[in-house]
Amino acid sequence: MPLINRLAVIGVGLIGGSLARVLREKGEVGEIVGIGRGAANLQRAVELGVIDRYEHDLKSGVADADMVFLATPVCTIADIVAEIAPALADGAVLTDGGSVKEEITLRCEGLTPARAHFIGGHPIAGTENSGVDASFSALYKGKRCILTPTPRSDSVALGRVKRMWEIAGSEVVLMDPRKHDKVFAAVSHLPHMVAYSLVNAVGEYDGCDENILKYSAGGFRDFTRIASSDPTMWRDIALQNRSAVLEMMDFFAATCAELRSLVEKSDSEGLESFFRSSKNHRESIR
Amino acid sequence: MPLINRLAVIGVGLIGGSLARVLREKGEVGEIVGIGRGAANLQRAVELGVIDRYEHDLKSGVADADMVFLATPVCTIADIVAEIAPALADGAVLTDGGSVKEEITLRCEGLTPARAHFIGGHPIAGTENSGVDASFSALYKGKRCILTPTPRSDSVALGRVKRMWEIAGSEVVLMDPRKHDKVFAAVSHLPHMVAYSLVNAVGEYDGCDENILKYSAGGFRDFTRIASSDPTMWRDIALQNRSAVLEMMDFFAATCAELRSLVEKSDSEGLESFFRSSKNHRESIR
Repeated sequence: MPLINRLAVIGVGLIGGSLARVLREKGEVGEIVGIGRGAANLQRAVELGVIDRYEHDLKSGVADADMVFLATPVCTIADIVAEIAPALADGAVLTDGGSVKEEITLRCEGLTPARAHFIGGHPIAGTENSGVDASFSALYKGKRCILTPTPRSDSVALGRVKRMWEIAGSEVVLMDPRKHDKVFAAVSHLPHMVAYSLVNAVGEYDGCDENILKYSAGGFRDFTRIASSDPTMWRDIALQNRSAVLEMMDFFAATCAELRSLVEKSDSEGLESFFRSSKNHRESIR
Repeated sequence: MPLINRLAVIGVGLIGGSLARVLREKGEVGEIVGIGRGAANLQRAVELGVIDRYEHDLKSGVADADMVFLATPVCTIADIVAEIAPALADGAVLTDGGSVKEEITLRCEGLTPARAHFIGGHPIAGTENSGVDASFSALYKGKRCILTPTPRSDSVALGRVKRMWEIAGSEVVLMDPRKHDKVFAAVSHLPHMVAYSLVNAVGEYDGCDENILKYSAGGFRDFTRIASSDPTMWRDIALQNRSAVLEMMDFFAATCAELRSLVEKSDSEGLESFFRSSKNHRESIR
């Protein structure tokens, strides 16, 4: 018997499409219903065999689904849960793929009716491409997926979501939603804020009477890759994880100020040790 | 007739070795003398055919060389020019590969005797590897090489250095040494300072009760690649280009503060436009 009888995927793009593909491939899902606004994308998802059929209406889409996966922008998730709440089947399990978790988890738990269960999730996977055409069944293989249950979470629902991500090939890690947001503010949101700032600073620096970007080489181009991520997605992440992002930006600014002071004092030993410590941190990443 | 009769390469690693290789391959050099302290590395360079013979003594090494290429750390270049000055042949041309240019160019011009000529240079090329084993003749192909002549520079000497880099496959750009240091403070030195600071900030953040680096994904890893560059080389670059690096670090800090204020005010439009502008800068890089 498959893990899921009817899976509703809200937002059939890279994230939603890839989960649908791998569950189908492993024979762990009966029917897959895609839900979204764009008919062309949903039609394409049917042609690709990613979903069996689609609905534009959220409530009709989730009817009789025993698993609902919300793969839409972080700022839309709680509103969607509010809208589908009355239509959810008995025992339906809701989970999402948003990269900010505290606000989403707490709001969605509160919005989910007692007969259903919400478990927050964040698969740490993605590519530079988006849309259902970019989806593939191995996206989650070997990647971590963070789930953010709370003391209110139903343990059976948590077990089903955990099993779903394990079937997708991921290593599931359970984490407090607030801690999740602090960890990802540090390892993901801050690097994006820094890359965007750096590219803007260099792009706007006008002390050289010409566009200096043409002299950029490898190092700078690595930054521009991150800084070309979707502006609306990162706007939403910055807004949703505001306090943790601000805390990390301040911590980073203090570290920059420390380095600035070493440069200003021409502190040769201090500079070498600052740079060497960074190299050591890198080596601590398995 | 080859462009160079006897080339002396001081520092036979990735940079010096790759230039020797391409000039040999193109038949544009008679004899290549390697100069350095480590016998094992120089012996290896002979075995690989990168150099014909080697000397440990700087003065003996440059005797009768009509082209001398200094490929040693930026902080050593002027001292080496001071030491070899008395031994230089009539008409000898000296050039270097250092990534900071104002101080080196002005000091080395002053140290070079009237019978010889110094032209500052900076090939924009490199890999993550170092040492003569990492050298290869195509390193400079399709890359820019900045030369930093001054009003005192000899035009024939400049023409020979320019020709040498063109033979190596590079596009030669002439630039005022002070402007060079401002441009590269922005597109190269600042990104390194930022990457080192970010990796240290995230590595030292202890607000999560565990090593959070294990949750890092693609974005952060791009930074760690840059931040694992040679600590002593970047110490020297920060020291040699101190004022331009400080100026760019301040400019960057102001840009970060602008972004911080948008996040703090939850300025949705401002955030999207900040992130979008970064994407546009990227697209302006040809």
